[in-house]
Amino acid sequence: MAIVGFGKIARDQHVAAIAATPGIELAAIASRNAELEGVAHFTTLEELLSQAPEIEAVALCTPPQVRQAQALAALRAGKHVLLEKPPGATVSEIAPLIAASRLTGKTLYATWHSRHAPAVEPARAFLAGCDIRSVRIDWKEDVRVWHPGQGWIWEPGGLGVFDPGINALSILTRIMPRPVFLTRADLAFPSNRAAPIAANLDFTDETGVLIRAEFDFRQTGDQTWDIRVETSKGTLTLSSGGAKLFHDGQPMVDEVEAEYPALYQRFVELVGQGASDVDLTPLVHVADAFMIGRRDVVEPFDD
Amino acid sequence: MAIVGFGKIARDQHVAAIAATPGIELAAIASRNAELEGVAHFTTLEELLSQAPEIEAVALCTPPQVRQAQALAALRAGKHVLLEKPPGATVSEIAPLIAASRLTGKTLYATWHSRHAPAVEPARAFLAGCDIRSVRIDWKEDVRVWHPGQGWIWEPGGLGVFDPGINALSILTRIMPRPVFLTRADLAFPSNRAAPIAANLDFTDETGVLIRAEFDFRQTGDQTWDIRVETSKGTLTLSSGGAKLFHDGQPMVDEVEAEYPALYQRFVELVGQGASDVDLTPLVHVADAFMIGRRDVVEPFDD
Repeated sequence: MAIVGFGKIARDQHVAAIAATPGIELAAIASRNAELEGVAHFTTLEELLSQAPEIEAVALCTPPQVRQAQALAALRAGKHVLLEKPPGATVSEIAPLIAASRLTGKTLYATWHSRHAPAVEPARAFLAGCDIRSVRIDWKEDVRVWHPGQGWIWEPGGLGVFDPGINALSILTRIMPRPVFLTRADLAFPSNRAAPIAANLDFTDETGVLIRAEFDFRQTGDQTWDIRVETSKGTLTLSSGGAKLFHDGQPMVDEVEAEYPALYQRFVELVGQGASDVDLTPLVHVADAFMIGRRDVVEPFDD
Repeated sequence: MAIVGFGKIARDQHVAAIAATPGIELAAIASRNAELEGVAHFTTLEELLSQAPEIEAVALCTPPQVRQAQALAALRAGKHVLLEKPPGATVSEIAPLIAASRLTGKTLYATWHSRHAPAVEPARAFLAGCDIRSVRIDWKEDVRVWHPGQGWIWEPGGLGVFDPGINALSILTRIMPRPVFLTRADLAFPSNRAAPIAANLDFTDETGVLIRAEFDFRQTGDQTWDIRVETSKGTLTLSSGGAKLFHDGQPMVDEVEAEYPALYQRFVELVGQGASDVDLTPLVHVADAFMIGRRDVVEPFDD
């Protein structure tokens, strides 16, 4: 398979995860500038598609604003396609990809890497068996550390603080026993940027449970990626982005984080089954937040 | 059946359309302030549900920000539910309504009144049989004429110019032979308002056709609700919101507009079939536009 778009996430996660996964092998990179020693290099996806017919699958790690056309071209060329999160710049642009994957019989996999964190499935099982009283999400990180110089994140479609925040929403929508929906959003836009640097969100579900999420890109020092659920059976806490799970303070799981290897294992399974996996729910919540969000302008942000 | 929320659209359209439709009768109004002579009045939906068990269906004409809870309560009370457009303040809030309607076996009908304009089905049939080269939508009206004093339209979730613009999108998504998706949006926000007063949108589809939509609430004088499609078989023009259809300038249909009677006829059909009809596509496009939209601040708007 090939990686298309060779930025930070591709280098930090995808290369090692592909190497660790039986059934796939990294055979090419398509990237305007970046190369990887020992792996074939193409400047564009188009070059790769025309010159490397032996490639069977592509992982698209390009920014969301350009990914739809690439995914469509790859599916039409008969490749299986793995999409980094978010699956697109818009919700609607995915429908033609689903149609193309059905037409070609190739796998389309819209990944949510945080759903493969070790705490997620145990939390889902726990919450299926109790009453949920409230949920509190704190997803607060330093954008200068995690997205250094990534200008696209501040452009329209780049999502700003929702780029990490959507990871929390991908966990929330997996562990909750009923669909949730947004009732209020407050978005803080730096005066010089087209995307929010912070967001406070209220969700609920048909039982009326209060779900409060706070996303902030301005956190320095300790970083916080926590989800705390108050239930009839005590407090469930997913911390460190889902790497750890506590029940009333007692550890329930404390495994080594291996999100991307698990994700590629799932990709190989899907290809083997001739299946696709496209859940747009987290992206729909983000679109909803932009649609109903109250906007505050805050101080300018510079890298 | 009952009407819930008795504002302009209920008075202007729903009362007469219900009267004109065999199989239904207007038996009650739920509205804080407004009444209709000769029809039972309730102050709230809750009162209506508890005191008028003979009501079988409700049409929700309240602002979108409050409609979800009302629809859920009505479905749970065993009523068929008709939703004015847009079907909700968010895309996600509809999922629990669909689930509730399945559980109770009651009809949920998310209406798009403009789809019942006389030009729509003939246009759809025409476009299924030719190549589409470009689409141009101009949806420009005077907000002071059509939404006098409707403060909710400028609140978060009220959609601003997308409140009429979504009518154009409901037609577009019905007549086009393939799913469309947004590639760019420019939104003009009055400096004193939380919703846009104008929007320029670019859509495309998997064939790469250019679809340009311009929505504007600041149009005085002549009002414009036109969709023009350049095709391999000439120019198709839907004008006056779909009331008229022209092929290369020659009229193809020129029927009397009867959107709401057609809509209620469809509602009666759906109830008879035990079916629901919920297409969220137009609302998803609006959410997408807010998510990827570039925002410009323009001069303040006052009623």
